Amino acid sequence: MIYIAVMGHGVVGSGVVEVFYKNLENLSAKCGSEMDIKYILDIRDFPDSPYKDKFTKSFDDILNDSDISIVVEVMGGLEPAYSFVKRCLLAGKSVVTSNKELVAMKGFELLSLSRDNNVNFLFEASVGGGIPVIRPIAQCLAANDITEIAGILNGTTNFIMTKMIKDQMSFKDALCLAQSLGYAECDPSADVEGDDTCRKICILASLAFGKHVYPRQVFTQGITGIHLEDVSYAESLGHAIKLIGRAVRLYDGHLSVTVYPALISKDCQLASVDDVFNAIMVRGDATGDVVFYGKGAGKLPTASAVIADVMDCVKHISARKYLYWQDGEDGYVADYRLDEHAFYVRGTSQIDVTSAMLGGLVAGASAEVLDKIRETFGTVRFVGRQDANDGEIVFITGVMREAAFTQALDRLKDFLNPESVLRVMDY
Amino acid sequence: MIYIAVMGHGVVGSGVVEVFYKNLENLSAKCGSEMDIKYILDIRDFPDSPYKDKFTKSFDDILNDSDISIVVEVMGGLEPAYSFVKRCLLAGKSVVTSNKELVAMKGFELLSLSRDNNVNFLFEASVGGGIPVIRPIAQCLAANDITEIAGILNGTTNFIMTKMIKDQMSFKDALCLAQSLGYAECDPSADVEGDDTCRKICILASLAFGKHVYPRQVFTQGITGIHLEDVSYAESLGHAIKLIGRAVRLYDGHLSVTVYPALISKDCQLASVDDVFNAIMVRGDATGDVVFYGKGAGKLPTASAVIADVMDCVKHISARKYLYWQDGEDGYVADYRLDEHAFYVRGTSQIDVTSAMLGGLVAGASAEVLDKIRETFGTVRFVGRQDANDGEIVFITGVMREAAFTQALDRLKDFLNPESVLRVMDY
Repeated sequence: MIYIAVMGHGVVGSGVVEVFYKNLENLSAKCGSEMDIKYILDIRDFPDSPYKDKFTKSFDDILNDSDISIVVEVMGGLEPAYSFVKRCLLAGKSVVTSNKELVAMKGFELLSLSRDNNVNFLFEASVGGGIPVIRPIAQCLAANDITEIAGILNGTTNFIMTKMIKDQMSFKDALCLAQSLGYAECDPSADVEGDDTCRKICILASLAFGKHVYPRQVFTQGITGIHLEDVSYAESLGHAIKLIGRAVRLYDGHLSVTVYPALISKDCQLASVDDVFNAIMVRGDATGDVVFYGKGAGKLPTASAVIADVMDCVKHISARKYLYWQDGEDGYVADYRLDEHAFYVRGTSQIDVTSAMLGGLVAGASAEVLDKIRETFGTVRFVGRQDANDGEIVFITGVMREAAFTQALDRLKDFLNPESVLRVMDY
Repeated sequence: MIYIAVMGHGVVGSGVVEVFYKNLENLSAKCGSEMDIKYILDIRDFPDSPYKDKFTKSFDDILNDSDISIVVEVMGGLEPAYSFVKRCLLAGKSVVTSNKELVAMKGFELLSLSRDNNVNFLFEASVGGGIPVIRPIAQCLAANDITEIAGILNGTTNFIMTKMIKDQMSFKDALCLAQSLGYAECDPSADVEGDDTCRKICILASLAFGKHVYPRQVFTQGITGIHLEDVSYAESLGHAIKLIGRAVRLYDGHLSVTVYPALISKDCQLASVDDVFNAIMVRGDATGDVVFYGKGAGKLPTASAVIADVMDCVKHISARKYLYWQDGEDGYVADYRLDEHAFYVRGTSQIDVTSAMLGGLVAGASAEVLDKIRETFGTVRFVGRQDANDGEIVFITGVMREAAFTQALDRLKDFLNPESVLRVMDY
């Protein structure tokens, strides 16, 4: 009999217990071993739970019980999860976690500890909820040179963006709706500021490219600055705006790792990922683009990923899985200002609008401003729309470095007040 | 040192050797073992190959060499692949194959042999080329009750359908183009008649539901009967026509497994899968819908999947992977005539067109015929289009059994000559 402990009885934790007991017979048959949950750790009381006899408030009960060979950590947050997981691994217990903050911050250290103690540290549920992505990247795509990973990794922000695109809701209204539906927390900042996406792309980049990428190394921008005007311009360009977490291997062995809202072509599979769904695109030299799509969060999808990892531990109880990456280092992630893209700029012209309109294309913008923009950026593409505001100017630059773009935009400051700047992906 | 033999040096086989040597250093590092290809089996001569010293025409060289612990079978076709693979497994060698015919016909027997001889029989490349799908279904989704798998599993037919939909090419012209681009063989019947899709859905259904499904048990229809008229009607309904391989678990434990072109809503992720791409949707009780998308065929994608399996064998050289299903049985797959769908019917009315047009909706169809259709099928939805042919009638039925539908259509035979019948999926 293999005994398991579950630390945390929140949304994911209660889902793990529920899915485990619902499918126990089937799971045992697939693993070829009997198993049971012996402890559930939570500081709260659950007097009405059918599993109330399993609850404990003491981590030591788990740590000191040699019956427990697998510990599931679904508490979330860095502490006390980190201390508990570390002590479990040191005590020779395998750990399965859904905690993206833990893996993004401490992945290298915990993988090393698991290796040294010949146990497993698995975290399929930390990225993409129920979408299998960690294991396929580690195993199935192992024969590929992966050159890029890009994904829609946060369901809450994707829900908000979808409502803005499809129903022309403002960011504020869409966020309210997401909160009322339980998709967004009262304090939504980890989602809308991009931190959650940042943690997930750190995990994927570490796994795919073999060295730990830390959140502090990643340029991260959320979706709070996106306006309906931008959504509508993107639409007229045949693009959608999505919050993209992206890691690209550069020619010199460094990585570019970034999180920001970007324009992607509607021909790209990522553009059709709506609502709370997630998708992860993996670009390999042999496979080309492979995309994994599904519900990126939620009680049952995440619980099912946790339990799949538990089953893998059970099957490999004496044979550690090969899952490992090296420590990262300063300078491994290149300065994002060296990245090259096309840029979308929406601004208002600051000088008096007296000149002739340019064929009605740019509402109220003077020929002088347009000339200045061309002079500064070279060839640009001006984009118009019906009912544009007075003085509103939108253009797409050619592909250029972030640093050069920023300087150029600054040189225009007497002529153009930039209200929105977005990167345009080449897919 | 782990020695590998590759049987077959066609498109996939030569890709395997190419990807193997290109990434050898990286692969060895990831596996923690040195490895090399010792033999390449082919009846042809390759005097210009950089690996010409490894070629042999004798299978016995591989079978009798105790150095060889892993054999890659990429010959295709049932024989001699089946005999060779069987003898390798009996001799204690692990086998990796991309041969969908072999797995669809002999999967249970070969999995049993591999289990009895404590070696691996792996076949990630047999479905979806470079898309990881066999392993994710077996492992990551193991904690789910899978209720349905549906996929676009054949790149050639999807290319043809895409050309029909996007460029209004006829089936014949699109097939010609596919042949000239090397996507379709001179004899394209295995693709366009649905046999290839059938083999793949057999493998997926066997794996997901635990019992072997044989191709002869699967109702299979190809795309040769699809006309541009149908594509255009589908479009006007907000649907796309795709060749779908589908396996659904029924309430009584039986399966419905079918292959046919069907109308799917453009809101479904499968509808946006174009050209030679494949996608597999897996519906689980906990995860909801998960979709795997990528290039379903081609030299390098398939080779990379083969090599990932080889690496898995190397890593688990003494620990067999848990991949197994039971034998199937007659009656396990239910008669497709018990399945329920809505149906799309395009026909011409056979009686003189003298009556008034129905508000212009159905070109030239008499009110009498329309009444007959309503009388026979109950509530139906008539669909019109511009420039419809005289007497052309298109309607969508409510959800009904295949058997009842066939009978009803037969009762209409004096009034309607059916030219095209397609199932309408509920997604």
